[in-house]
Amino acid sequence: MYQPLEQKKEQKKDRKNLSPAAFRALVRQGSFTGNTSGYAQGFVQGNVVILPKSWADDFLRFCQKNPKPCPLIAMSNNAGEYLLTELGEDIDIRTDVPRYRIFKKGQLVAEMNDISTLWQDDFVTFILGCSFSFEEALLADGLEIRNISENKNVPMYRTNIACKSAGRFSGNMVVSMRPLLAKEAIRAIQICSRFPQVHGAPVHLGDPSLIGIDDLNQPDFGDSVTIKDDELPVFWACGVTPQVALAQAKPELCITHTPGAMLITDIPNSKLAVL
Amino acid sequence: MYQPLEQKKEQKKDRKNLSPAAFRALVRQGSFTGNTSGYAQGFVQGNVVILPKSWADDFLRFCQKNPKPCPLIAMSNNAGEYLLTELGEDIDIRTDVPRYRIFKKGQLVAEMNDISTLWQDDFVTFILGCSFSFEEALLADGLEIRNISENKNVPMYRTNIACKSAGRFSGNMVVSMRPLLAKEAIRAIQICSRFPQVHGAPVHLGDPSLIGIDDLNQPDFGDSVTIKDDELPVFWACGVTPQVALAQAKPELCITHTPGAMLITDIPNSKLAVL
Repeated sequence: MYQPLEQKKEQKKDRKNLSPAAFRALVRQGSFTGNTSGYAQGFVQGNVVILPKSWADDFLRFCQKNPKPCPLIAMSNNAGEYLLTELGEDIDIRTDVPRYRIFKKGQLVAEMNDISTLWQDDFVTFILGCSFSFEEALLADGLEIRNISENKNVPMYRTNIACKSAGRFSGNMVVSMRPLLAKEAIRAIQICSRFPQVHGAPVHLGDPSLIGIDDLNQPDFGDSVTIKDDELPVFWACGVTPQVALAQAKPELCITHTPGAMLITDIPNSKLAVL
Repeated sequence: MYQPLEQKKEQKKDRKNLSPAAFRALVRQGSFTGNTSGYAQGFVQGNVVILPKSWADDFLRFCQKNPKPCPLIAMSNNAGEYLLTELGEDIDIRTDVPRYRIFKKGQLVAEMNDISTLWQDDFVTFILGCSFSFEEALLADGLEIRNISENKNVPMYRTNIACKSAGRFSGNMVVSMRPLLAKEAIRAIQICSRFPQVHGAPVHLGDPSLIGIDDLNQPDFGDSVTIKDDELPVFWACGVTPQVALAQAKPELCITHTPGAMLITDIPNSKLAVL
């Protein structure tokens, strides 16, 4: 059906102002299957990992040992539970994520908008914090976030920083990078230190070769962004780290969100501030 | 009188463990006129500036506008007051600083151990925080402070960062520099952010030329220290900044402590933590 551009823009703008619950209702009915960046602003968006119970205990320990790349915001209380009432009264993890990825033995086998038909009684759900929350806090303080101003995905890099292993899970840390002036980097460290559940303070800044990154213009994930002469690259632990660990561990079944298409919760970002 | 070396060392060690009040008693009777670094550990040491009332209001505004280089911990309530009971019940600012410098129109004219005979009814005393407090917090966290491990004065540099002017006071910021690994620098920013009254978080890190420093091996004050290949220079606002502003403003009379010979207060360093 033909829809004029202005009308589409208006619809998108309206959707951006939806409450988390109203947004999830759209997702649940299959009307939104895209990237959630910029939607339900002010509310925590979560990375999703769903594993069979036989793999969940190791993964929980991996998160506990590596809280900067794997900051656990919530998990299901019992295997098989699909309601996440801690994060939002009506959240059903089988239907409320815009797009899911299904992995078998580490291989992507399907993308779906609803996993109700796949649900198993032994599934355990993990929700991990995401950089959208701290980017919002940095923007609110007046900092420019280059990937946002250049309308790109944040550049992400594999590093030589080893995560602590837990059972079948191990691997090196993946980091995201945002270029900042030194005084902005100092301010960003202060702001992000308040938010340990969304990766917390940066893990490195300055010379990328010291953490095993050869070329900032060749990110392993996402897009490269402009770095000005007077800026330092600042590196945060990234939620792609557990995805890499999952790909290496090759559980028989694993379901995640599609990158960028997050679970939107009812938790205000400010509630994650520890001080 | 001959005193064996071992006995001298023992005496110094004993003195290092003195309470602030007992240490000030030594200073008051003229038995200690040296550098206070390492004495009365755990207690706040202060930079001292004493000005006639006619200059004090401008200086107070200069501190208020430039809290990072000029963090005001206390000042006398009324002109002429020489007891600073807020900082320690028995503190007499005329006698309790190990060594004073007397400036006339910006020129150093004398050093004295007691300024009782110079005291004027219009004198206003300012006590500013000092880096010893945050260095102690960094050491407690396991960081190496290069100027301490190399037994040197911290290197200090004039920058091109302009202070905000207040009346007759103006000038560029002076910074101190401590080299750290990136992850240590991030940790130092977190720790020092808790202590705004002792210069707070660093003001710059990385490329020194961006703040007008040509050569880290040629500090304007203090000694140069070793910077390893994998370290970043980290720069803090420095208490020499107000001294430079005073030298430029040239008040008819100004009394300060001799660098390194600070006022030792009864305030535990931990009391300065804002969070």
